[in-house]
Amino acid sequence: MDARYLSPDPAQRTIALNLYHQVKNLPLICPHGHVDPRLFADADYRFGTPVDLLIIPDHYIFRMLYSQGISLELLGVPGKNVAETDHRKIWQTVCDHWYLFRGTPTGIWLRDELRDVFGITQKINGVNAQDIYGAIAAKLADPAFSPRQLFERFNIEVLATTDAATDRLIDHQTIQQSGWQGRIIPTFRPDAVVNIDTEGWNENIQQLSAVSGISIVDYRSYIAALEQRRAFFKSMGATATDHAVQTAYTEHLSQSEADAIFRQALKGEATPDNAQRFTGHMLIEMARMSVEDGLVMQMHIGSYRNHNPLIFENFGRDKGADIPITSEFTRNLKPLLDLFGNHSNLTIVLFTLDETVYSRELAPLAGHYPVLRIGPPWWFFDSLNGMRRFFDTVMETAGIYNTAGFNDDTRAYPSIPARHDVWRRASADWLAGLVVRGIIDEEDASEMAADMAYRLAKQTYKLG
Amino acid sequence: MDARYLSPDPAQRTIALNLYHQVKNLPLICPHGHVDPRLFADADYRFGTPVDLLIIPDHYIFRMLYSQGISLELLGVPGKNVAETDHRKIWQTVCDHWYLFRGTPTGIWLRDELRDVFGITQKINGVNAQDIYGAIAAKLADPAFSPRQLFERFNIEVLATTDAATDRLIDHQTIQQSGWQGRIIPTFRPDAVVNIDTEGWNENIQQLSAVSGISIVDYRSYIAALEQRRAFFKSMGATATDHAVQTAYTEHLSQSEADAIFRQALKGEATPDNAQRFTGHMLIEMARMSVEDGLVMQMHIGSYRNHNPLIFENFGRDKGADIPITSEFTRNLKPLLDLFGNHSNLTIVLFTLDETVYSRELAPLAGHYPVLRIGPPWWFFDSLNGMRRFFDTVMETAGIYNTAGFNDDTRAYPSIPARHDVWRRASADWLAGLVVRGIIDEEDASEMAADMAYRLAKQTYKLG
Amino acid sequence: MDARYLSPDPAQRTIALNLYHQVKNLPLICPHGHVDPRLFADADYRFGTPVDLLIIPDHYIFRMLYSQGISLELLGVPGKNVAETDHRKIWQTVCDHWYLFRGTPTGIWLRDELRDVFGITQKINGVNAQDIYGAIAAKLADPAFSPRQLFERFNIEVLATTDAATDRLIDHQTIQQSGWQGRIIPTFRPDAVVNIDTEGWNENIQQLSAVSGISIVDYRSYIAALEQRRAFFKSMGATATDHAVQTAYTEHLSQSEADAIFRQALKGEATPDNAQRFTGHMLIEMARMSVEDGLVMQMHIGSYRNHNPLIFENFGRDKGADIPITSEFTRNLKPLLDLFGNHSNLTIVLFTLDETVYSRELAPLAGHYPVLRIGPPWWFFDSLNGMRRFFDTVMETAGIYNTAGFNDDTRAYPSIPARHDVWRRASADWLAGLVVRGIIDEEDASEMAADMAYRLAKQTYKLG
Repeated sequence: MDARYLSPDPAQRTIALNLYHQVKNLPLICPHGHVDPRLFADADYRFGTPVDLLIIPDHYIFRMLYSQGISLELLGVPGKNVAETDHRKIWQTVCDHWYLFRGTPTGIWLRDELRDVFGITQKINGVNAQDIYGAIAAKLADPAFSPRQLFERFNIEVLATTDAATDRLIDHQTIQQSGWQGRIIPTFRPDAVVNIDTEGWNENIQQLSAVSGISIVDYRSYIAALEQRRAFFKSMGATATDHAVQTAYTEHLSQSEADAIFRQALKGEATPDNAQRFTGHMLIEMARMSVEDGLVMQMHIGSYRNHNPLIFENFGRDKGADIPITSEFTRNLKPLLDLFGNHSNLTIVLFTLDETVYSRELAPLAGHYPVLRIGPPWWFFDSLNGMRRFFDTVMETAGIYNTAGFNDDTRAYPSIPARHDVWRRASADWLAGLVVRGIIDEEDASEMAADMAYRLAKQTYKLG
Repeated sequence: MDARYLSPDPAQRTIALNLYHQVKNLPLICPHGHVDPRLFADADYRFGTPVDLLIIPDHYIFRMLYSQGISLELLGVPGKNVAETDHRKIWQTVCDHWYLFRGTPTGIWLRDELRDVFGITQKINGVNAQDIYGAIAAKLADPAFSPRQLFERFNIEVLATTDAATDRLIDHQTIQQSGWQGRIIPTFRPDAVVNIDTEGWNENIQQLSAVSGISIVDYRSYIAALEQRRAFFKSMGATATDHAVQTAYTEHLSQSEADAIFRQALKGEATPDNAQRFTGHMLIEMARMSVEDGLVMQMHIGSYRNHNPLIFENFGRDKGADIPITSEFTRNLKPLLDLFGNHSNLTIVLFTLDETVYSRELAPLAGHYPVLRIGPPWWFFDSLNGMRRFFDTVMETAGIYNTAGFNDDTRAYPSIPARHDVWRRASADWLAGLVVRGIIDEEDASEMAADMAYRLAKQTYKLG
Repeated sequence: MDARYLSPDPAQRTIALNLYHQVKNLPLICPHGHVDPRLFADADYRFGTPVDLLIIPDHYIFRMLYSQGISLELLGVPGKNVAETDHRKIWQTVCDHWYLFRGTPTGIWLRDELRDVFGITQKINGVNAQDIYGAIAAKLADPAFSPRQLFERFNIEVLATTDAATDRLIDHQTIQQSGWQGRIIPTFRPDAVVNIDTEGWNENIQQLSAVSGISIVDYRSYIAALEQRRAFFKSMGATATDHAVQTAYTEHLSQSEADAIFRQALKGEATPDNAQRFTGHMLIEMARMSVEDGLVMQMHIGSYRNHNPLIFENFGRDKGADIPITSEFTRNLKPLLDLFGNHSNLTIVLFTLDETVYSRELAPLAGHYPVLRIGPPWWFFDSLNGMRRFFDTVMETAGIYNTAGFNDDTRAYPSIPARHDVWRRASADWLAGLVVRGIIDEEDASEMAADMAYRLAKQTYKLG
């Protein structure tokens, strides 16, 4: 089983295993993800039941079950309707349908996590469901399974959370003051105050005024408040910002245009067209601030959020109903790149849900512009095939040194080692494929394996 | 040769062969195709010459020859000009250029068909062309080569034809009354009465009035007539409908809007824009009817039909001049899914000619919405590489259980076993690749092989 | 090392090596590229320093270094600012960062070129940089390294340059009159006089008047001048034209419309929309001329040129800042194909930077229209993975006989053998993959290997 996820070719597998063994124990760099900082603020945090930990928060799992007709209520997902509360019953339902995950990344993450974190080697099915539930529950009761203990066991060097611009970062302050040595840092994500067509944007702006201490009445004070928050996040250890946008559209507005749209928005009168222009302008403005404060700028492009109104109305956001759309970067990013594309103090990491842009746009762009790095395969593409396609379509043109290494991007904390392990195995196997084809030698492959597993993420996100 | 189409890696090949042997003799489920029901209505049906059977009706073959400068007239394709009538001469022309099919699915289907159905193991070329012609002709004269006999020999469990909404299904009635046990069922395809910009739409509507017995004078009577036809098709065994549309655009019109456009169309005055809106509306209306009558809804998206006017004017439709275009599903299907995407009594099978949507749109959509299933690789992608790309880009996100198994989609009746065999080999090989990489175990692989070869198609199309 | 770039599977590798050995010494057909004809006009031409030869003219190399923050000035690229002139220092900078090219086609081309052309087997790095520089410089001083000598050593059968419509082809005349036997032919590239929004278009038209001897005052005289130039190029040995356009848009204008836009352009008053329509019309006009004079028409589609204004202003064109965009052929080419798609005297070779069109549009189009051939993987896709994807997505639908073989498309003259060698190895490996899977037999594979390495390019470009 040690050779899992590697090519069956004996020559390639031998080299891949050798490379993998060189990197498998390197510390984990987690520069982007959605783990709740509360896990680490409370030294005695407990995960609850196996279902609290593994099912209810994981939209990768319940979307698949939902696609086969199992209601989210039956899975205990909280919403407007009464949800199942018997966690053993929920677990049984999941295990009865676990065959749905055959051949999927979710299937292998959970298997690897159960084995490597919880010591459970049985294959999940309806028969042994309750046994496995009991075994997980027993482990979770053990203090060795607190988030802080696992952090050390997982050998995580640094873990970044993702936090709203209006967040006061209380948990991060608690962690820093606790004396615990784990490095947990925030990431500045201003979507809710920057995308003026977000539901509740006006209240978000009021909150932004409150936390920044700057009364936001116009575009100028708004920018000042954002700069204040960035400085605060940076003071709390942040090295990056994050921007989730449907398209990569950028447009530079004049101060007066930006101000006019901002004032419309305050009155709830911004048109959809102006909302898009303003978002596009704010991406440029965020790049400008990054040039000044050095925060690495992440752009996650291409998700049509909350596609299913029934699910959104009953259960809210992040319930597995976000669907990708086509993306375009060459033309959309040009206004931003025209201004800041050649700047030595800026790093922008691009993520996409449209794999066609890998070879056509992202690799040529990152293979030219000094500010650009390509983020690892995201979301649906954080998988063995997703990685293989990423390697095959990006690396020839961009080289690995214009990529950003790996990040796990997860809210499922105990799956972090499994996710990094898949990446390390996949990259070792890809590199071994280059060696057996005489494209690179083993010396280069060793360096590249360490770069991909550890160094590129650390350097790109300035985590040294 | 038993290992054909399988990976050369010895470990993978061994497992693949094992899986293939488990499924190769399962009955054939043929839920979508274009075989003429007349073949089975007439117990003594004969196929004519080898050219009648293999060349003249097969646009996969003559498009390739045409692309290299061989006129359709020389290949005996009927049209406005005088066509070659000497079938031995036509066959010679085809065989002289058979090298064009090296490495193509058409090349391997015909080779496999000649060997497995006709017992001919010689490789086609200009020298042995006449020998092979004679050998095929001799077989075709044998009563064992009647369609009904072959149906049993091919081990076909059920075969669905594709029939116009206005078809009276006389052949299907004849088959049912004949006492023959073969299960041949119709499929309801209303394109010619639903797409109001179809040439001859008005006559089609008159025909629809005639066959339904409902005088169509407005949108309301039009809908009633369509419902009448669906009920009739269902009574004749149909379990599915089929809709071939250039785009997946859907839009819900009010009754009065729909009626207004319908009346314009009756007067020949519908604008292209209104035609598109009406088609988009009718897809939603067909989904609504499927919720009510349970017919599985198939959507074939993305073919620009009759791209070459010279060919269309001289030879008509389906002459190898249909060219794919980009497709979009995430936004286009939303109006339909908003209404019916969560309905337990609806199944929609999506087919595409734009492979970029596999990983970006179809797999995430089908991996969430209960009503969606992804159809197998279609047309140009019904091939070894097309299947491999389909498996690699769809299955991680959707799982195999949101796919619809295989269908052969062919009018070339004797090629059906070869087509299913390619799929069974390709899926066995893909599963073996997962096994040797430790992604799934052999137990799961066995189940999945049977699902992909047989069960998924049967279940998706309600053919149990 | 002889098995480099081949599959590690022993069975496939053995067959691949056998096929490769059959074609590796076939003469090189170079029907499209950017080598300067001056290299051959001057019998004593010398390449200058290793940096003059290998770095300064090669945007593949310096774009990658630039993407990692190394200025073009430091690399000696001439522009508005002072550039480094110490070539040993430039070479050191390049070698210090040579790790950036790990796994890239540029990396393997230069390695293969240094070994096979210059006899240097050391791996480039910062330590041995000066040694390697000295070794290359010593070779370049040797008369055996003149372009003409290398032409013979490389076994080039014919090499086409790419030349402006206004070029008087003085170098080609010199070569032809020199008595040297190397076949160097021009290619007619009229972009600068056909795309009316090109900077300097009006001066280009004046030049066109001057060289053609036809005073261009309206559309009619403009067409006459272009026809005169084509006839001249043909008299000088040209067999092809080349058209680099951002999109494949075609539109047939009436004479009077074309004339009206042309006159606007002469006055500098053409709108962007009219510029696009005129370019689209001129593609059709060029096809019409090709029907008449038999010149093969090449279309290179999809590059957004000079994306980075800072680089363009300081260094000009072709500096690694051209970025691909999405392309569309099915609808865009239809007006042209409606007129000339079935013509027996026309060949159009299509190139794309958007790989999604391979399987969706190019293969189905070329698998039907007699005039179409698909060019080999272009630019970023002239790579091992680019070729593999090309083979996998194009060949099943189009067959190899609707492709145009290989061309190196390079201005880096001494890299030509390495580029053809990569193609020959990649195609041998792909064919071996078909053999071990039982898709084709070895006899067919041998024919196909020779077709792909040599015959298809020669025949497509009428170089017999």
